[in-house]
Amino acid sequence: MNPMTADNLRSAFGGESQAHMRYLVWADKAEKDGFPNVGRLFKAISYAEQIHATGHFTAMKDESGDFSVTAGAGFGLGSTSENLQGAINGELFEVEQMYPAYIAVAELQGEKQAIRSMNFALEAEKLHAELYQEAKDAVDSGKDVDFNEVYVCPICGYTAANGAEDKCPICGAKKELFKKF
Amino acid sequence: MNPMTADNLRSAFGGESQAHMRYLVWADKAEKDGFPNVGRLFKAISYAEQIHATGHFTAMKDESGDFSVTAGAGFGLGSTSENLQGAINGELFEVEQMYPAYIAVAELQGEKQAIRSMNFALEAEKLHAELYQEAKDAVDSGKDVDFNEVYVCPICGYTAANGAEDKCPICGAKKELFKKF
Ligand code: FEO
Ligand code: FEO
Repeated sequence: MNPMTADNLRSAFGGESQAHMRYLVWADKAEKDGFPNVGRLFKAISYAEQIHATGHFTAMKDESGDFSVTAGAGFGLGSTSENLQGAINGELFEVEQMYPAYIAVAELQGEKQAIRSMNFALEAEKLHAELYQEAKDAVDSGKDVDFNEVYVCPICGYTAANGAEDKCPICGAKKELFKKF
Repeated sequence: MNPMTADNLRSAFGGESQAHMRYLVWADKAEKDGFPNVGRLFKAISYAEQIHATGHFTAMKDESGDFSVTAGAGFGLGSTSENLQGAINGELFEVEQMYPAYIAVAELQGEKQAIRSMNFALEAEKLHAELYQEAKDAVDSGKDVDFNEVYVCPICGYTAANGAEDKCPICGAKKELFKKF
C-alpha cells in the first residue's frame, strides 16, 4: 500500500476509534439526563464507527497480503503472533514513555484527576504487556495460551488471567465488581 | 484544567481508544486462527482500554465543572446538548474535510480497498450529522428525540432512525443483516 494512503487510513482509524468511544460516554450521559432515545442514537452510531474503524484497519493490509508497511507500528491485521507483538510494543510504549511523561506534567500542574486516571492506566498496562508476552510465547510454540478466565477491574482496568486477587491491587475495588471474560 | 495536561489527556484518550479497537479486531483473528484463549485475552484487555479511555475523557472536565477548554473540540463530558454539538462538529469535519481529502489521495494512488472503506464512511457520516442535529433540536426544546428503533448496517455503517430501507442504500446489504438498537 502507498504510504500516504496508509497514513490517511491510520488517521481515519484514529478518528473513528475516538468517535466510537466518545459516543459511548455521551450515551450514558444522555440516559442519565433523561433522554433514552438520544442514548440509543449515540450507542447505534458508536457501533457504526466501529464498523468504519474496522474497515479502515483491515484495509491497511494490501492486496498481496503484505503487512510490512504497518506491522511495525502495530497497525493493520497480521498473523496472531504479529498482532501480539504489535500489542506488546504499544503497551511498552505507554509504560516506558507516554504515561511517565504525562504523569510528570500532571504532577507539576497539580491536576489530581488526571494523575489518578493516568496512574491507573500505567499500572494496568504493565500487566497487559506481561500477559500478551505470555500469550505470544504460547502461540509461537504452536499452542493456545492457558488462560481460561480473565478478570478486569471496571474502575482502573487491572487485568488478571492467572487467578484474580480478592481486592484490586491497583485501586482497591472488591473482586465482586470485576468483569469476567 | 491546564491546557498542557488537557492535551496529554486527549492524546492518551486517542491511544487508549485505538488500542480498544485494535484488540477487538485482533481478538476475532485469534479466534479464527484457533487460539480462543488469546481471543479472550484480547477482548478482556480491549475492555480495560475502554475503562482507561473513559477515565481520561471524563477527567477533562475540571473540578469546577468547567468544560470550556475541551467542549469546542468535542472532547470531554458536557451537557447532552453540548455533547450532541461536539458530535455534529466531528461528523461535519469528516464529511466536509477529512474524507473528501483522503478519498482524493486514495483515487490518485489507485488504492481500491481504501476508497471503498472511506466512501462507506463518508456516506454514513452525512446521515450521522443529520440524525444528531434532529436529536439536538429535540433536546434544546426540552424533549427526547422521537427515535424508537435505530438500524445500523454492519457492512458500511449506514444508520437509519426513521425506518430503515429494505436494502442498504450505501452498500446494498439486505435489511435482515442490520443491527437494531
Ligand atoms: Fe493496555 O493500554 Fe490502556
Ligand atoms: Fe465514522 O463518524 Fe459518524
